[in-house]
Amino acid sequence: MNVLSKPKGFEKPAGVRDYLPHAVEKLRAIERSVLDCMAGWGYRQIMTPTMEYYDTVGVASSTSDQKLFKLLNNRGTTMVLRSDMTAPIARVVASMLKEEPLPLRLSYHANVFRSIEEEAGKEAEFFQTGVELVGDDSPEADAEVVALAVASLKAAGVTSFKIALGHVGFLNGLLEEAVPGREDVRETLKDCLLQRDFVGYRETLAGLSLSVEQRDELEGILRLRGGKEICRQALELSANPLAQHAVRHLSEVWDALEDYGVAKQVMIDLTMIGDFSYYTGMTFEGYAAELGFPVCNGGRYDNLLQQFGRPAPATGFSLKTNRILDGVDGILVEPELPVLLQYDAANRKLAFAEAEQLRGEGRRVVMRHVDGPADVLGETIAREVRSGPLGPAYGEIRTYTSF
Amino acid sequence: MNVLSKPKGFEKPAGVRDYLPHAVEKLRAIERSVLDCMAGWGYRQIMTPTMEYYDTVGVASSTSDQKLFKLLNNRGTTMVLRSDMTAPIARVVASMLKEEPLPLRLSYHANVFRSIEEEAGKEAEFFQTGVELVGDDSPEADAEVVALAVASLKAAGVTSFKIALGHVGFLNGLLEEAVPGREDVRETLKDCLLQRDFVGYRETLAGLSLSVEQRDELEGILRLRGGKEICRQALELSANPLAQHAVRHLSEVWDALEDYGVAKQVMIDLTMIGDFSYYTGMTFEGYAAELGFPVCNGGRYDNLLQQFGRPAPATGFSLKTNRILDGVDGILVEPELPVLLQYDAANRKLAFAEAEQLRGEGRRVVMRHVDGPADVLGETIAREVRSGPLGPAYGEIRTYTSF
Repeated sequence: MNVLSKPKGFEKPAGVRDYLPHAVEKLRAIERSVLDCMAGWGYRQIMTPTMEYYDTVGVASSTSDQKLFKLLNNRGTTMVLRSDMTAPIARVVASMLKEEPLPLRLSYHANVFRSIEEEAGKEAEFFQTGVELVGDDSPEADAEVVALAVASLKAAGVTSFKIALGHVGFLNGLLEEAVPGREDVRETLKDCLLQRDFVGYRETLAGLSLSVEQRDELEGILRLRGGKEICRQALELSANPLAQHAVRHLSEVWDALEDYGVAKQVMIDLTMIGDFSYYTGMTFEGYAAELGFPVCNGGRYDNLLQQFGRPAPATGFSLKTNRILDGVDGILVEPELPVLLQYDAANRKLAFAEAEQLRGEGRRVVMRHVDGPADVLGETIAREVRSGPLGPAYGEIRTYTSF
Repeated sequence: MNVLSKPKGFEKPAGVRDYLPHAVEKLRAIERSVLDCMAGWGYRQIMTPTMEYYDTVGVASSTSDQKLFKLLNNRGTTMVLRSDMTAPIARVVASMLKEEPLPLRLSYHANVFRSIEEEAGKEAEFFQTGVELVGDDSPEADAEVVALAVASLKAAGVTSFKIALGHVGFLNGLLEEAVPGREDVRETLKDCLLQRDFVGYRETLAGLSLSVEQRDELEGILRLRGGKEICRQALELSANPLAQHAVRHLSEVWDALEDYGVAKQVMIDLTMIGDFSYYTGMTFEGYAAELGFPVCNGGRYDNLLQQFGRPAPATGFSLKTNRILDGVDGILVEPELPVLLQYDAANRKLAFAEAEQLRGEGRRVVMRHVDGPADVLGETIAREVRSGPLGPAYGEIRTYTSF
């Protein structure tokens, strides 16, 4: 069936990448800095398997079926490569941690997988660094994860960014009243907002038989982007109880964010509904000034845990760590260049002892055995010997020979 | 076809595991300590994708076909989950790093995958931490990776261990002479040695028509385990040029290990041929006194790189990081318990500022909003509030309320 030629020896699959040392050093620095930040807020790291059952975590993960990487285990059961960390952590909270009292604060740094069209140039494997706060349904909990997202982005070296804060309950309340029972229309309108297609949103509204008031409400949502004043405007726009409840919750989150001192980095955007179907309340996205796409997203998901047998409210977020790695220069890593320690047979023991001493002091040392005088690298040659992707090789040369 | 019931919501596939915070903290401590050690020896970390093409890295990986996890990409090409890191790194050295002068010193910490029989209780996903030294065929290079394996095991907290050092060339030389053209017999004998089945080895020899001298040679190999004196005995046992060359190489490796000061941790064992088909020279395994199985293995593989289009000799090793995590207590991690900071609405801003201050000093702080006097946790209650798998929750309580 496959008419394509075999992959060549050095090829790797589309959508996945190799990280050379300078990229690994930067990624590791971001990972360490962000996880340390999260630990400071009382979040403890967990790790889960790369493979999960399709019927449990796969289905719960809110990734569309065709984007899941699937494979079979020895018993013929379908497994998936995890497409996010929220569903696996919900599974762990409901199993290994089921005796642990709530609230639970957990963090992670993990690679996740999405099957993509090869043409799209998107990544099929990428890193996320995030937290889940399980067992607290208060606005305080939502504010905590937003404030921690701000702190985490700073820790990752993102210097200029804005968090857009929304709530799925507001739009749901308006739609429930305007187009009851029309799930298809609701999905179309939500998709338009998700794609930031406000023209399509208005056109869809125009095609519906709505009262003038309902149309005004649903078009009015497009203007609901700004500071705290948006909450007041939203309360005036619709009297729907679900919508009113959503706005009051957001308003309390905002007040807490002011006390955290991060409100200046947040804007309310009621067109922002989040792109995960499991979100049930507040949602947010972070945009970096230097990049054209979100660098983090998060939200409240109060119905996911019950799918794993332990009903509990939860809220969290994840950083899009690869995008930060590629697009942000806030963390600069300049590892120390190693010492090149050249030696001949007669001086080997002396050279090894010297290397051990230097390593004990935290220096990096590369050993090089030389056979004769012609083989000894001069200071200048050795420093310049490498100019490939890994950069210069040595910062200092020491030579132990008896020639 | 599948008559099994669906997996329950909280189940995960057989052979994979969740790591709770205390395990993650220990794993991370081992990972950091070992990678820092490797960096001290001039090895720089790289990362490669979880998925590779079956036809390239999958075939080169020296993992038997039925142990590879396979899946299809969107174009119908077969991919595998990587089963080791040596083959992917060989691919990178021959592609992205092809302009980089040799020798190259690279390190990694990565999860790898082996499809296993569910009954066996073995792990289908586990961690390896290791190095590859590419482009140096000298005994010095082999000694460097053995000495670095010793340093890495110490860095991982393994206090009592022994490295068994062998060479595939010695047995190959003897077999080439004794049973020319009998690939089946050679494989049987090698399998016996690999399984440490010395009775089976002797029985297989007894079934062959060998000269007395050849049988003495091939049985004699079983006695070749000990210190440097084994090299002399091995040189006397067989005059086969391949075998002699192997022993002379090992002898030079041993001399370098003496200069490194690690020979007391190494024994020569010419029955030790390594369990990877790509090994071409020296091989070694590390055994921890407290554990019944190897904690590291390595060896020379001079023919692998040419499969990726850049012929070069190479040598390396990997630690079996999961076994060290589970079996060794050398690294104890006692993370600081967080401060619980309780606050009411009136004191929220004050409490948030206090938390920020404490986090800036490196403390861990968990926030807790309280609604009224009855909701305030007392010092004793709060300390004991958790006794689940995560252990006690707080080391200190601070309360900011106006009740």
